[in-house]
Amino acid sequence: MAAWGERLAGVRGVLLDISGVLYDGGEGGGAAIAGSVEAVARLKRSRLKVRFCTNESQKSRADLVGLLRRLGFDVSEGEVTAPAPAACLILKQRGLRPHLLVHDGVRSEFDQIDTSNPNCVVIADAGEGFSYQNMNKAFQVLMELENPVLFSLGKGRYYKETSGLMLDVGPYMKALEYACGIEAEVVGKPSPEFFKSALQEMGVEAHEAIMIGDDIVGDVGGAQRYGMRALQVRTGKFRPSDEHHPEVKADGYVDNLAEAVDLLLQHADK
Amino acid sequence: MAAWGERLAGVRGVLLDISGVLYDGGEGGGAAIAGSVEAVARLKRSRLKVRFCTNESQKSRADLVGLLRRLGFDVSEGEVTAPAPAACLILKQRGLRPHLLVHDGVRSEFDQIDTSNPNCVVIADAGEGFSYQNMNKAFQVLMELENPVLFSLGKGRYYKETSGLMLDVGPYMKALEYACGIEAEVVGKPSPEFFKSALQEMGVEAHEAIMIGDDIVGDVGGAQRYGMRALQVRTGKFRPSDEHHPEVKADGYVDNLAEAVDLLLQHADK
Repeated sequence: MAAWGERLAGVRGVLLDISGVLYDGGEGGGAAIAGSVEAVARLKRSRLKVRFCTNESQKSRADLVGLLRRLGFDVSEGEVTAPAPAACLILKQRGLRPHLLVHDGVRSEFDQIDTSNPNCVVIADAGEGFSYQNMNKAFQVLMELENPVLFSLGKGRYYKETSGLMLDVGPYMKALEYACGIEAEVVGKPSPEFFKSALQEMGVEAHEAIMIGDDIVGDVGGAQRYGMRALQVRTGKFRPSDEHHPEVKADGYVDNLAEAVDLLLQHADK
Repeated sequence: MAAWGERLAGVRGVLLDISGVLYDGGEGGGAAIAGSVEAVARLKRSRLKVRFCTNESQKSRADLVGLLRRLGFDVSEGEVTAPAPAACLILKQRGLRPHLLVHDGVRSEFDQIDTSNPNCVVIADAGEGFSYQNMNKAFQVLMELENPVLFSLGKGRYYKETSGLMLDVGPYMKALEYACGIEAEVVGKPSPEFFKSALQEMGVEAHEAIMIGDDIVGDVGGAQRYGMRALQVRTGKFRPSDEHHPEVKADGYVDNLAEAVDLLLQHADK
């Protein structure tokens, strides 16, 4: 593999995944990953542009930012690209009224959306909300529609909480796709539109940007397909087998965000 | 399409799906489909061999037969091919100890199976048992295994109860497949091994046998791929679009089991 200097040359902007990179969720809100609070602070003091790009769909942006600030991170709502607000934009543009299968914590993001007489379904990481009854209701709504439209806020397979691995929205998206014989529209990583928004909001071109995430497919593969570079951290949901993934090869693997920031501050934007 | 006489020539044995063909499940056990009780009785009085071939995995065979008998059907346990007993055979042959994600109603079928320190997962139509917590537990067991093995008792998309369409085990199988990056082994229709067992137990070759079911993929497509003929009934989960399915074309579509039996008694075994 080329030297870090070569791999990171010309990077001007950094997109940071949140869960598994900044912190691991769990009891009492979760815990910051060692070194990440300082790493974010150093990055923000540098000449590099920084933006947070998350598939978090259990919490509203306000709640997520509140949690991160309590853990010591310097982050504000305006710096976060998240799927629920992106979905609301799409729903409004297309005049769609969703049936929501989402966590109560994110419901407030949809306050301005008409959910009467639904003509589509939106699913997000609903956690315990993914009961048989709720899944069956979403399924029945889709089967009643002439042209069933399903939006999924991300399609992650699982994430890591302090207590262990937890199923994410992706498996439930696959379940509804199979049940109804349809394909969902993904809002969030690895959708190209989502990376496009985050880069526009950061004001950096894809070839000048790098994604740092713990998900080899959603973060690394998605960013690379959009023309960005991407590093995988060995925290969060990272598993050793990720470094031999059959389809995706990161531009680099680092132990954690702190190491990624060390390398970026040494080699980027040169 | 050829005349019925041609399509049914040489049929000596009939495999009957149960749910959606004999009865629709639901409140209080469900309800017999009009004409089906008499149709089964007429078939059993004929020279044709008859066997029941079900993917029912919420109930033990004993409970299913008890329910059918209360609805008026002439059926005994020995006449039913069902996935739970087939799965137990496979588990014993391969020395596997399952973590069970199944409905309480079918748990007794696994009484003789060692479930300590599990080295595989078996899922069946668990209904309300498909909670987030139970799905996550099955997922975690699979992720702990070096070679994760997942058995799914059938892979139906949905079935019809008297109250409406209900998600079957298939969507949950897809969810775990995606979450773990694996492929499940299906025990039940449309697995060729399952049709093979049912035909052996009936003592009829595939080319002499016909399947009657309400599932265009699991019943009709599966039976045809195994070299049988197959009729789809317009009861149970049947939907008009099934008659224009992109991949599967039944050897005939009939309004219900009663019509299928009329045609068989008129044209089969000639």
